[in-house]
Amino acid sequence: MSASTQLRRQRLGAALTDLGVEALLVTTLVNVRYLTGFTGSNGAVLVLADGSAVFFTDGRYRDQAAEEVPDLEHVITRDLIGGMAERADVARLGIESHTLSVDAHARLRELLPSTSLTGTGRVVEKLREVKDAEEIDALTRACDISTRALAGLLEGPLVGRTEREVARDLENRMLDLGAEAIAFETILAAGENSAIPHHHPTDRVLAQGDLLKIDFGARVDGYHADCTRTVVLGTADDWQREVHAAVKASQAAGLDRLRDGVPVSDADTAARGSLEASGWLEAFTTGLGHGVGLEIHEDPFVAASHTGKLTSRTVLTMEPGIYVPGRGGVRIEDTVLVTAGAPEVLTTMTKDLLEIG
Amino acid sequence: MSASTQLRRQRLGAALTDLGVEALLVTTLVNVRYLTGFTGSNGAVLVLADGSAVFFTDGRYRDQAAEEVPDLEHVITRDLIGGMAERADVARLGIESHTLSVDAHARLRELLPSTSLTGTGRVVEKLREVKDAEEIDALTRACDISTRALAGLLEGPLVGRTEREVARDLENRMLDLGAEAIAFETILAAGENSAIPHHHPTDRVLAQGDLLKIDFGARVDGYHADCTRTVVLGTADDWQREVHAAVKASQAAGLDRLRDGVPVSDADTAARGSLEASGWLEAFTTGLGHGVGLEIHEDPFVAASHTGKLTSRTVLTMEPGIYVPGRGGVRIEDTVLVTAGAPEVLTTMTKDLLEIG
Repeated sequence: MSASTQLRRQRLGAALTDLGVEALLVTTLVNVRYLTGFTGSNGAVLVLADGSAVFFTDGRYRDQAAEEVPDLEHVITRDLIGGMAERADVARLGIESHTLSVDAHARLRELLPSTSLTGTGRVVEKLREVKDAEEIDALTRACDISTRALAGLLEGPLVGRTEREVARDLENRMLDLGAEAIAFETILAAGENSAIPHHHPTDRVLAQGDLLKIDFGARVDGYHADCTRTVVLGTADDWQREVHAAVKASQAAGLDRLRDGVPVSDADTAARGSLEASGWLEAFTTGLGHGVGLEIHEDPFVAASHTGKLTSRTVLTMEPGIYVPGRGGVRIEDTVLVTAGAPEVLTTMTKDLLEIG
Repeated sequence: MSASTQLRRQRLGAALTDLGVEALLVTTLVNVRYLTGFTGSNGAVLVLADGSAVFFTDGRYRDQAAEEVPDLEHVITRDLIGGMAERADVARLGIESHTLSVDAHARLRELLPSTSLTGTGRVVEKLREVKDAEEIDALTRACDISTRALAGLLEGPLVGRTEREVARDLENRMLDLGAEAIAFETILAAGENSAIPHHHPTDRVLAQGDLLKIDFGARVDGYHADCTRTVVLGTADDWQREVHAAVKASQAAGLDRLRDGVPVSDADTAARGSLEASGWLEAFTTGLGHGVGLEIHEDPFVAASHTGKLTSRTVLTMEPGIYVPGRGGVRIEDTVLVTAGAPEVLTTMTKDLLEIG
């Protein structure tokens, strides 16, 4: 991890001067992990403009930190804020004011009376949008495990088992294939439940004729996969075919706009435009996509209001859906890697409507 | 849930006047859940001194909030801070400054220029220390599922399987018995790995003669169980017996001090005193215990520095251990309910040294 995290810290350091600070106190745990490799539950890192850094944690993590963060000086203390203040005695210090608590901020002010504290925005989150080779490798492995697990599950049998049982089966398949954990609680929704965007699996029994929506993913080395497929148990009826085709077309339209240099909002326009053309736009009630990496939902969020442009090596999801309360719903979602051309789909599995068993 | 959450809001309201505020803006998600029953990932609640309240969430949670929080007025908005500011226009407003971000605080200040914002400390966390009947019921069920799952697991076979496999087996048993999820990532550590307090299961194969330390728990209705047992695979040797007996004695000494009206620090003194008497105090390197409920680690934390006293219906853990790097370790942990007399142990399973298989 050291070579990658060192580069990340250097990129962050280079950004600090433009932000008008000499150093940034990184206290958001997932950002600390990104910049140091530390996976514990209490840690922080002070990054200076030249990319040098000091790592802070408490005694519980002494050994783990030595192993995971071998390349930085460590300060081991029960009082992280106090320890940080001792080392952060600069004139202009950046803080992560979007997550730092009011109390922690007040204490820093007290301990560093001659330092000006400046919120630097989501600067680390912005860096995290563009993945390096190590991150893309972890995401690729997470997506590969996810889709192989789903392929195995769909070999069946499915009809007659409960949503809960089938969700557990899928999760165990991911763990068997080497996932360190599941990326999030599996959404597995049959029949009328498929109309609920974020349904929790129940004891409902899967039956012939059901739509079955499965939103799931594996976690590998801290990186999350996110994939949804919706299949029909038995033979699809005309309505199921129509809705599935509309979502598939919308997803293809959105995916096509996920390219280097293209405004993030373009994908939103394209995917919604497709649903409008097929007459289903009103039935699409969730977000369209989000970055994915060390967090299951991270920047950038795909929305009409996003004013930025996409950059190569950004990894995000594209997940339009149609949800008709009481009747059913379809979602198709991939985790994809932005390139100069068509995005590279990491969750490689057919998006044709599968009729299972 | 409504009756319980209403009582909780009334207790909070009654505490606000003493804190010098007219209302408290509760933005810590687990506290929002405690006060409303809401389980989504974005919500807040404004509680007034008379116990009345307004609930805030965004459109994704409209239906879920209607189901989970039927007894409160809802404000559905993409801009939670803005929505809250509109309703919180009082002279003296409490905020959860230990978790509220600097940015959210700045925006509240801007939107409420004539309101004084006061950090009220961990007032909701303090209320959460003492469990009501509904909470004790959920904790009891979570602990019961946990111990039944472990009893099943220990019927074996265990030798020849990997830590990872056996941990998965235990987790699946808890889910089969009705857990909604596991309470935390299972620690299952064999042989020399048992010396690592928070070991992650590996592919190490369990062998005859190993100490096997298992720290695990089920989650039920949001409430966490936390239990550790350490067994020997095969026949225990003298050293294993000695260490196990020392931990068992320390845990008994600590448990005995978990009583209504007794200083929290007494249990620390007692458990450490026992380890000192047996000569093993230096090998005890973790915290001794913690509250458990909607969070796996919550107030109160058992430590010499804790200045408060215990109250009946507080639920917490007692988990002394001995960790000898390279050789092995033993931890015994229960989740217990404080009463006027001896605490009620919720993780009912023998603490005698079991020799398995």
